[in-house]
This record gives sequence, structure tokens and C-alpha cells, in this order.
Amino acid sequence: MPTGTRIDVTSEQLDAVAFNADGLVPVIAQDIDNHEILMMAWMNAESLQMTFDEGRMVYWSRSRQELWRKGDTSGDRQFVREAYYDCDGDTLLFKVEQEGAGACHTGARTCFFRQFGS
Amino acid sequence: MPTGTRIDVTSEQLDAVAFNADGLVPVIAQDIDNHEILMMAWMNAESLQMTFDEGRMVYWSRSRQELWRKGDTSGDRQFVREAYYDCDGDTLLFKVEQEGAGACHTGARTCFFRQFGS
Repeated sequence: MPTGTRIDVTSEQLDAVAFNADGLVPVIAQDIDNHEILMMAWMNAESLQMTFDEGRMVYWSRSRQELWRKGDTSGDRQFVREAYYDCDGDTLLFKVEQEGAGACHTGARTCFFRQFGS
Repeated sequence: MPTGTRIDVTSEQLDAVAFNADGLVPVIAQDIDNHEILMMAWMNAESLQMTFDEGRMVYWSRSRQELWRKGDTSGDRQFVREAYYDCDGDTLLFKVEQEGAGACHTGARTCFFRQFGS
């Protein structure tokens, strides 16, 4: 059974995260094995710290306005392997191991299963 | 010299894009060759249509509040290869061919060059 990688973040790194006016930061989850982009969701400071501490992805659900411990309901947890922040600190990238069928609530492997173009 | 791929989007697909209260949608740019995530930025409806029409990435700069035809200044243009929208239409994914040294204004290949953890 996979487990997450706890990440010991420095205070300097935490300070570099630029939360928006709502206290949220967008987070990209990428499959560390096949490099597929699985989803994009949001974290607040609390869910980000939980993600680092537990080594599994904990988002903030904007629709439900509550912590969203990814996979608690679906079983499709995401285990943290590596985490990055971008040049201006306002977007995060987590490389994860995706458990179960996939990341998407539709059952798809990735949320980006619809392609533009006819 | 690379050129972009014009994408003929259906009205149904365009209608599926869920812009936020500011009229913007987050867009992930991924290198189509090595699958690196290059950057995340924002588009409004106009820049999205320009991106589809020209086949190169045109963002909306939130800091400058103007269209940002990526690479016009730096030369580091991004040519569109494939474009996707996620399950709820509020995030877009473009697979691109990155011109020049990289996507980041720092000169780095990707904006996500800083890793959490000590």
C-alpha cells in the first residue's frame, strides 16, 4: 500500500507561497510516473500544511467551503512525492502517486479528458 | 521555424469554459515533448480566442491588465499543439512547443524550478 512522503518545508519556502485575496492558491497535481496532469484544485494555508504533514493531497473545496481530503470518500487518494512552487509563488505543483481508478470525480484518470477541436 | 496549430473550437466547447468572476480562466502550459509543466497563467475570452486562432499562447496579464502575447518581448513563444478543458470547465490545459530558452521570465525552462523540502 502506498504512503505519502512527508515534506519538511522551511519557513522561507512557506513564506514564498502567495495566497490570493480569498486565502487560496491553485495547485496542479501531476502523475509522477506518466507525467499526466491529473487535476487542478485549490488549497488554503491549513490544507497545504496538512498536505505537507500527511504526505497526501488535502485541498480546500470552494464549492463546499471545507477541507477536502482527496480520496476519503472515493478512495482515490493522492500520495505526495515532490512539491514545487513557481517563480512568483502563486501556483504550486505536486507530483503525486494516484491511487485507484483516477483523479476525476467522473471516474476518468485525469480531469482533462475533453479536447478542444472538431 | 515552428508555427502554431490553429484549433477550430466548437461553440459547445467554448460554452463549456467557465470563466471566474473576473472573466478569467487558469491555463496550464505543458511541454508536449518532455511533459514538463512550464507555467500557469490566465486567459480571458479574448485571449483564449486569439490563442485558438493564432495557434500560439496569448494570456491575460493580471498585473499589467493587458493582453500578453507570450514571447513578443522575450522571443520565447509557445506554439499550441493540443488543448484540453477539465471536467468542470474551469481550468484549461495546453500542450505546447516552447520556443527559446524557456517559459519563465527568470530564464528558467519552467516556472516551477523551486522545490519544497530541505
